Formats: sequence, C-alpha cells, structure tokens
Amino acid sequence: MSFVLHPRLMADTAVIVDWTLSRVLLMNDKRFPWIVLVPRRSELHELFDLDEAARAQLTCEITRAGARLRSWARLRGRGGDKINVGIIGNLVPQLHVHVVSRCKTDAAWPAPVWGFGRSEPYGAAELMRAVGEIRDAL
Amino acid sequence: MSFVLHPRLMADTAVIVDWTLSRVLLMNDKRFPWIVLVPRRSELHELFDLDEAARAQLTCEITRAGARLRSWARLRGRGGDKINVGIIGNLVPQLHVHVVSRCKTDAAWPAPVWGFGRSEPYGAAELMRAVGEIRDAL
Repeated sequence: MSFVLHPRLMADTAVIVDWTLSRVLLMNDKRFPWIVLVPRRSELHELFDLDEAARAQLTCEITRAGARLRSWARLRGRGGDKINVGIIGNLVPQLHVHVVSRCKTDAAWPAPVWGFGRSEPYGAAELMRAVGEIRDAL
Repeated sequence: MSFVLHPRLMADTAVIVDWTLSRVLLMNDKRFPWIVLVPRRSELHELFDLDEAARAQLTCEITRAGARLRSWARLRGRGGDKINVGIIGNLVPQLHVHVVSRCKTDAAWPAPVWGFGRSEPYGAAELMRAVGEIRDAL
C-alpha cells in the first residue's frame, strides 16, 4: 500500500517539503514554530515499526529539523529556547514526529504544546509565507 | 565534567539499569509504565548536542525500551496500546527521553502524560518490585 497522509494531519498542517524519508509539515498554529515529520511509508504506528536503516534516517531528519528550526527561531526573535520532540499518536495512529521550537514566553511554557488551549491558524498569506521561510531555513 | 543525574530526575525516579549510553530510570508514578533514558554524558540539552554515533545509540535504546515496555505492558494486562516518546526538557534541562506505555483506559488518555494531574508514587516495596520486573523485561 502506498503512503497516504492521515486526514487529520492533512487538515491541520501545510506541506513544507519531502525529505528522503519524511514528509515535512508545518502545523497550522501560529502560537508555536511547529513541524511534523511523517515517514512516507504505509502501516507505521510505532518507532519500532521502522527497520533500522529507516530509524537512523528518521533520527537524522529529526535532528536536522530541530537544529535548523532553533536557528530560524533565534534569528527571528521567536525564542528557540528549547526544542521539544514528541512521538505520541494517541489520536492519529499514523507514525509522526512533532518538532516544536519553544520560547520561555510562549503561551504554553513550560507545559508541552500538545493539547494546550486552542490552536490559532495562520491567515492564508501568512501560512504561505511561514511555509516558504521555514522551507528555506530547513 | 563527569555525568551527574539532575536532582529533579533523581527525586522523581528509581534507577533500573545502565545501558551502553543511557541510565534507564523508572518514573515513580504508578499511573503509567514510564521509563526515562538519560544519556550518561555531561552538558547535553538537545538531541543534536549528541554526536552522530551517540544519537544512533540513543535511537537504538529508545526503540528497545519502547518495544519491550509495550510487550511487558501487554503481558501484564496494562495496555500497551501506544508508546509515547517525548524529549521535552522545559523544566529539567539535562537531556532525557520519556518512553511511556499508554493504555486507552489510563487516567490521561488520549492526552499526553506530561503535566497531567498529580503523580501517584509507588509504595517502597511496590517500587522495588516494579523496578525488578521492568529490568527483567527490558
């Protein structure tokens, strides 16, 4: 079966780019610089559903996303105080990895962002701009 | 500088075992089967503070912890419906990785466990038993 993005992820995000393994998405929530990596393979739920080579590739992509998102956030004066990584999937079973840049003054700090308050979607033009900027940064 | 476990982690957990890279801890909260991996190196805050070989080793240890904790939880009738992995560190800056086995009937489901309600510490004998059981399972 080929890769199909889960409808909930499709509804909540915009596509930034495809990397070797993962589709890289921007969460449509302007409260936080928030990326989601989704390995482009079917029937994955847990990290250990990936073979060893793919896990190594995913680790490499998580690392790259985290380091570059932090640099981008720091340059833009949007914090970059801590990168939070989460592989949760209690609501969306398709394996996906959250990579979120946190700022000590953001809405949720020091709590995690998952399930925190209501998301604040970008405007359409704002979303396109954010996707472009983060694509360049990654 | 040699490795020293952060005082908050020391207070909240019990040591299960040392693996190649990580000290493996049991969170002293009987609501959830909850392991914490702490790479035994000083001055680490982010995943990308580790060199590539150490990141690969950490990925291997996260995978092992997740797969075996799930098997243990399923055998014990404690769910194992989803493994949640989190690298957060907003409160404790020392790099550490949460690996939590979730059950669809647990107290927090489907929310993440971090920051959810108040922890419920094990009794002393119960904690020793849990550490022993999970050490055997890992």
